[in-house]
Amino acid sequence: MTAMSKTTVGYLGPRGTHSEDVCSSYYPLDQWILKSYSTIDACIRATANGEITECIVPIENSLEGSINITLDTLASDVHLFIIKEIVWPIHNHLLTAAADSVIDTIVSHAQPLAQCRNYLAKHYPHAKLEAVESTAEAVRLVANGAKNYAAIANSNASKLYKMNIVAADIQDHIHNCTRFVTLSRQPAAYTDGEWKTSIVCKIKGDKPGSLFSLLQELVHNNVNLVRIESRPARTALGEYIFFMDMDGSIAEEHVLTALTALKNKSLWFKNLGSYLVFKSNI
Amino acid sequence: MTAMSKTTVGYLGPRGTHSEDVCSSYYPLDQWILKSYSTIDACIRATANGEITECIVPIENSLEGSINITLDTLASDVHLFIIKEIVWPIHNHLLTAAADSVIDTIVSHAQPLAQCRNYLAKHYPHAKLEAVESTAEAVRLVANGAKNYAAIANSNASKLYKMNIVAADIQDHIHNCTRFVTLSRQPAAYTDGEWKTSIVCKIKGDKPGSLFSLLQELVHNNVNLVRIESRPARTALGEYIFFMDMDGSIAEEHVLTALTALKNKSLWFKNLGSYLVFKSNI
Repeated sequence: MTAMSKTTVGYLGPRGTHSEDVCSSYYPLDQWILKSYSTIDACIRATANGEITECIVPIENSLEGSINITLDTLASDVHLFIIKEIVWPIHNHLLTAAADSVIDTIVSHAQPLAQCRNYLAKHYPHAKLEAVESTAEAVRLVANGAKNYAAIANSNASKLYKMNIVAADIQDHIHNCTRFVTLSRQPAAYTDGEWKTSIVCKIKGDKPGSLFSLLQELVHNNVNLVRIESRPARTALGEYIFFMDMDGSIAEEHVLTALTALKNKSLWFKNLGSYLVFKSNI
Repeated sequence: MTAMSKTTVGYLGPRGTHSEDVCSSYYPLDQWILKSYSTIDACIRATANGEITECIVPIENSLEGSINITLDTLASDVHLFIIKEIVWPIHNHLLTAAADSVIDTIVSHAQPLAQCRNYLAKHYPHAKLEAVESTAEAVRLVANGAKNYAAIANSNASKLYKMNIVAADIQDHIHNCTRFVTLSRQPAAYTDGEWKTSIVCKIKGDKPGSLFSLLQELVHNNVNLVRIESRPARTALGEYIFFMDMDGSIAEEHVLTALTALKNKSLWFKNLGSYLVFKSNI
């Protein structure tokens, strides 16, 4: 491992993505080298194999829900811990190369396309929607002269590529936020404060009360379930794995007790780490 | 309403999609007119407003999970019932215009791109992935001469557009199935057999045991929860609605009792219908 790798953080690039926005706000450039990856999967795997020290990836959006590739990669053979969460407000703008551009096709990452679904159906019912790897890639396409294209991206990308803003803040709801998490090979050191813990597990059998019986362990130990999300186990239709976020750190006894019981009732269990709850004033 | 509208079924087109495959297998052409829509949302809304009698839409894939747009539209202001479920095996092939085509870009619907994620990362690590509205639209792009493009689609689309199959069955797992549902303005009439019921609800408050307390009503009434899926409530980060599938029909007393209790504990509740469990031999 080189000196450089010790202080490098990865994000979903290229330059101008929402991920770069949040990454550059939380990782001071005098201490960190920011490295962009073309997919979330590559970014996470580079952290797992030691190529970089940490990465910051989106995990959930307030309008569109989970970022499936992040969940699926976390549940795969990588061994990483969530050490921080950041809630980031998302502003989506409709961008063209020139003020008088005709719009036939609207290109963006799949998530912003979905986040602006109602706006697009109302204002551009006949436009073709095209999903690419990132919002920045979408802007780059338009800047490079894709004919009659408009992109959906943030204002940073707009400045970076000198784009024309056709309409600002076109997301379907004002409260459009994305939760990002920072991943590391080492868990976060416990300190005082308000903590959260994430796990993923597969339930034994498909009997009536299996999920209920798992949740029972949390209730009995007074652990508050903040979020539950199912994803296909990728084995057969009807088999799922469950991602759960709960209040408290695994360093706290009642959380450890609940999770030990939950683990014993699971076919497969993975601790995704404990981390401080995001406070917007920090 | 015209005579035609009484016997028309909608599906996600254009011709050559997986949806057309399953639609034409289950709706005999001597009794039904098959009408294609360019989005799932449009297809569902055309059924709700009486333009067509029924529609068939994908709701869940064994590898990639929920079809979000289907769930979100079912939870919206439309009043429809699921009256049938069909589990359909999905075969994805990599198609090009000619046997010697170079592949720089691989285009498909977002779901097949995700279903073939590992195959693509292994065999085409440098190819650009592009998502369009449907698998058939992807094949049409390639057939119309998109340079150095390959499409991922089924064999029907391959025949329809006379494509070259570069690789067959490239999905990451053999058991790749999609669950489709048939929607109608009238609920299915109860008959003998094995039934399932789907609902969607929003939970009161975000207190520790809210979800637990809801599931308790199912367990107490001996109703087996088959599936639970959360989607953002689209209000604020951390607020969710829950889609649940359970064994039994609402025409059965214990299911009705459980659902009435569940409804009373919910902020908002919608019955999505009872329907016969899919049996592959029917």
